[in-house]
Amino acid sequence: MLRSHTCGELRLSDKGKKVQLSGWVQKVRDKGKLVWIDIRDRYGITQLIFEEENTSNDVFNTAKKCGREFVIFVEGNVSERSSKNDKLNTGEIEVLVDKIIVLNESEVPPFTIEEDSDGGDDLRMKYRYLDIRRSNVKDKLLLRHKLLKTTRDFFNNADFIEVETPVLIKSTPEGARDFIVPSRMNQGQFYALPQSPQTFKQLLMVGGLDKYYQLVKCFRDEDLRSDRQPEFTQIDCEMSFVDRSDVIQTFGNFMSHLFKKILNIDIGEIPIMKYDDAMKMYGSDKPDLRFDMKICDISSVTQGKGFKVFDDAESVLAISVPGCSNYSRKDIDEITEYVKTPQIGSKGLVYLKVNEDGTFKSSVDKFYSSDDLKSISKLCKANQGDLILILAGEENQNLKAISELRLLMGKKTNLFDNKIFKPVWIVDFPLFIWDSESDRYHSVHHPFTSPLTDDIESIKNDTRNIKANAYDLVINGVEIGGGSIRIHDRKLQETIFEVLGFSKEEAKNQFGFLLDAFRFGTPPHGGIAFGFDRICSLFAGEESIKDFIAFPKNTSGRDVMIDSPSIIDNDQLDELGIKLSD
Amino acid sequence: MLRSHTCGELRLSDKGKKVQLSGWVQKVRDKGKLVWIDIRDRYGITQLIFEEENTSNDVFNTAKKCGREFVIFVEGNVSERSSKNDKLNTGEIEVLVDKIIVLNESEVPPFTIEEDSDGGDDLRMKYRYLDIRRSNVKDKLLLRHKLLKTTRDFFNNADFIEVETPVLIKSTPEGARDFIVPSRMNQGQFYALPQSPQTFKQLLMVGGLDKYYQLVKCFRDEDLRSDRQPEFTQIDCEMSFVDRSDVIQTFGNFMSHLFKKILNIDIGEIPIMKYDDAMKMYGSDKPDLRFDMKICDISSVTQGKGFKVFDDAESVLAISVPGCSNYSRKDIDEITEYVKTPQIGSKGLVYLKVNEDGTFKSSVDKFYSSDDLKSISKLCKANQGDLILILAGEENQNLKAISELRLLMGKKTNLFDNKIFKPVWIVDFPLFIWDSESDRYHSVHHPFTSPLTDDIESIKNDTRNIKANAYDLVINGVEIGGGSIRIHDRKLQETIFEVLGFSKEEAKNQFGFLLDAFRFGTPPHGGIAFGFDRICSLFAGEESIKDFIAFPKNTSGRDVMIDSPSIIDNDQLDELGIKLSD
Repeated sequence: MLRSHTCGELRLSDKGKKVQLSGWVQKVRDKGKLVWIDIRDRYGITQLIFEEENTSNDVFNTAKKCGREFVIFVEGNVSERSSKNDKLNTGEIEVLVDKIIVLNESEVPPFTIEEDSDGGDDLRMKYRYLDIRRSNVKDKLLLRHKLLKTTRDFFNNADFIEVETPVLIKSTPEGARDFIVPSRMNQGQFYALPQSPQTFKQLLMVGGLDKYYQLVKCFRDEDLRSDRQPEFTQIDCEMSFVDRSDVIQTFGNFMSHLFKKILNIDIGEIPIMKYDDAMKMYGSDKPDLRFDMKICDISSVTQGKGFKVFDDAESVLAISVPGCSNYSRKDIDEITEYVKTPQIGSKGLVYLKVNEDGTFKSSVDKFYSSDDLKSISKLCKANQGDLILILAGEENQNLKAISELRLLMGKKTNLFDNKIFKPVWIVDFPLFIWDSESDRYHSVHHPFTSPLTDDIESIKNDTRNIKANAYDLVINGVEIGGGSIRIHDRKLQETIFEVLGFSKEEAKNQFGFLLDAFRFGTPPHGGIAFGFDRICSLFAGEESIKDFIAFPKNTSGRDVMIDSPSIIDNDQLDELGIKLSD
Repeated sequence: MLRSHTCGELRLSDKGKKVQLSGWVQKVRDKGKLVWIDIRDRYGITQLIFEEENTSNDVFNTAKKCGREFVIFVEGNVSERSSKNDKLNTGEIEVLVDKIIVLNESEVPPFTIEEDSDGGDDLRMKYRYLDIRRSNVKDKLLLRHKLLKTTRDFFNNADFIEVETPVLIKSTPEGARDFIVPSRMNQGQFYALPQSPQTFKQLLMVGGLDKYYQLVKCFRDEDLRSDRQPEFTQIDCEMSFVDRSDVIQTFGNFMSHLFKKILNIDIGEIPIMKYDDAMKMYGSDKPDLRFDMKICDISSVTQGKGFKVFDDAESVLAISVPGCSNYSRKDIDEITEYVKTPQIGSKGLVYLKVNEDGTFKSSVDKFYSSDDLKSISKLCKANQGDLILILAGEENQNLKAISELRLLMGKKTNLFDNKIFKPVWIVDFPLFIWDSESDRYHSVHHPFTSPLTDDIESIKNDTRNIKANAYDLVINGVEIGGGSIRIHDRKLQETIFEVLGFSKEEAKNQFGFLLDAFRFGTPPHGGIAFGFDRICSLFAGEESIKDFIAFPKNTSGRDVMIDSPSIIDNDQLDELGIKLSD
């Protein structure tokens, strides 16, 4: 090894030792007869000192010529620093160098290798290998590593077996967003990359493996947002002979374990909330429970008092924002602008200030009596000093709008605390959703999700109201994982395919192997998949997943570092039996 | 959970307990008033007993109706067996059942779910989910799981960081066997699936991550042999600030750790052998060292004695096969046939028996004196009772032929012991190999391999003889892993590209990001990659890797279970901007 120690290792107790270090030049301070170099590696930074008096000319001059990011090897003696640096683990010592070798030079890097780099996002992505040298990016990759390890330890200890499912699988028309791979040996045919190993993990249960997990790359060719990547990592799990409570217990324990091991936080028992309740109270199946601010239906009070906007609306909903009764006209105008943006789509905003002195001030004073306002305030459980915000409109749109408004007000009032974690299980989702465009039902999760046992009989005559035996784990408003008890009965699976509009032949073509498997003793089973990239960013208290991926792609699906995707020789396309469209 | 215990868990100490089990019906024995069912899950088999006298009619009749592979739930009391079965962990008990639920029925499976199944390979692959129920297949997947875990534990403990490198990368013309993936968002352009994460792991070293590992899926679209799969798993590793001895030490320790943990075998220090020596002594860079039988050049004795075949040959090589001097005419004819097959390509075989009584018997007696034969015998270090086999021919062909003959004789004389493991590091490979078809040099490993330091100066004028700073780990004649110290100097990398016939522009187009990276302080680094599927089969003492892969593909690259690859809708191809060739 080109070192006896790493750059994060030496302490005062090593004083007097002859040591060898290798690493990158972080900083050179040249004071004429003295030169200090900070040498950096993955493990830390150590201060080197070169004294003109006590060092050979060669060594001293080499030190003077070192620039930022040069790779050097040094040998020297550990000595105690006169001025110690308590921000560094190695801050009590320095190494008095008597030998230096420049292992590799460096041009001036395109941006500074510091926590606060001067490089913009695009530049840092082009030189991602330099970006990774920055301690904050490196720390994110180390956190990811720790989460990988802790995850595997948990499942290994719980007797889950890790199985690698195939990456070259079969495309299904359901998955319009499959990446596909032309087969050279089977020309005119294509593999697909998995959006998830769903059917394979179910087949592993059919195969009797009982408890399966895998940290697995999945792929989705959809238009990318800032928090989506075309390839992403899933913690994929499945268990046999379980019901919903078993799954929720097992994977709740898993999350508790992660929080305890990585962040030393006890998240306690994770509450369970029904989908209908989540929608009613938070307007979302991904409620952020770090703050309360529940949605109230106030139409019972507002109705029939002559305010046409409310009288004509399907829905009148309110939230009470704590401590904001002192919001200015300008503040409220800003919020009004927000709710009128197309993505929210409200027509306007009504406010009701519950002043500190107990009086009310509202934008619709003339329509509502003081008693009305008091009733609204009471419905919203508002306290003195709170600001009640009211939206009206079409039922679904209004619920979505007030849910977004709730999140905005949470952010504005600093209730988004990245150090607090509020997980919740959401259960009893609808099984189907009507899609007017394709004029048929779609699965809310996927077609292998079991209905609740009590609902099975009414699948065909009450399709819209059938509940799924599914569960999502939501933390701080983000869906971290989701899964379900699966169908294990062939007839039920066929019924579901039928409701979804599959002909018998289509079902057979696409999922024949699964329907076949159901003929040979499929056990009751269920599972879950967690978004691992999302867990990484959550645990670091960040919103974007990009920095937690070593080599991410941009929103056009490009890796700008290696410049991919790229064009391919016609020869190679010929050999695969495909050509570009004209 | 639909069970209180697994089917492998109950012991005599559980006697009297009320328990619940779930699993598959392995066997039903119906003796009229008594029915026994063996119930099976991943963990084992437990005997259930149903007594007409002591059970309700319902339960008793349900038991009688159970067929093979039915999935059942039972509740009952643990009791001591009258006739114990010491082959089963649960063989001292049985469960006296008073409740049974058939969770799922099963048709008669297409083959028996037994160690020795009656199902052929094709049938078992089509119903792979049933094949996995067989204990021998299940055990292979469990061994793989254990190897995955033990591998990760080793590298985690040694401070390696696990990093996931991308799957959607860039195609290089060098890698004619890339699988490619059309990009929807960047029409006319393609991603490629990695044949290895080689450049990425080097960039991680440039990024300062110091020690990296990953268990990673890799892809190669080449014609498949029985021991090749289009997707395979690699243990991929890289370290900074190391020389060859550091790498060999670290990964030698890794192999020792695997053997100790998994098989409880001490493999000791792994010997290091030069490529030239391996070729000379074993005719192969993958020598099987479970047996000696070294190759001897005997031309110094055979030359000029009037035997034209030997006199005209570039090479005359011999091996001495222990204890086979009693081989019959027929035995030797069989071997002769073998060496004359096209894949070996020898013209014939000469033998020399060193009889037990010290006399010689040879097929070329009339050309060689007794002294000559004695000299040959001495060169080959033959003992009395040995059989010397001699091949002559063109140098390279003859070396390859005798190497194959050596392996055949090893197998014939039962020297292939699957319980013995003889690892060896092969080093000092040639860096380049001349390819007459493309009329240029190719890399023996890959273009990022560093030459030995002493050879760097003569790269251009003695190209053929430059040695690589590379190393392969070979165990029992199989290449288990290979790697090298990498080039970290931009100029040297450019020289190598030049020797390989890349124009500056080609080099820039394909590896510009790597050459760029070399400008900003790339550390000395090196690494290795192990074939994980191969390690699994080696540790199980098997030759084929297929059964160690949960869902393997056949030699046409097809998954016959899911019937993939498959045709794709024209709509989907349109959206990707490609079409099939006419």
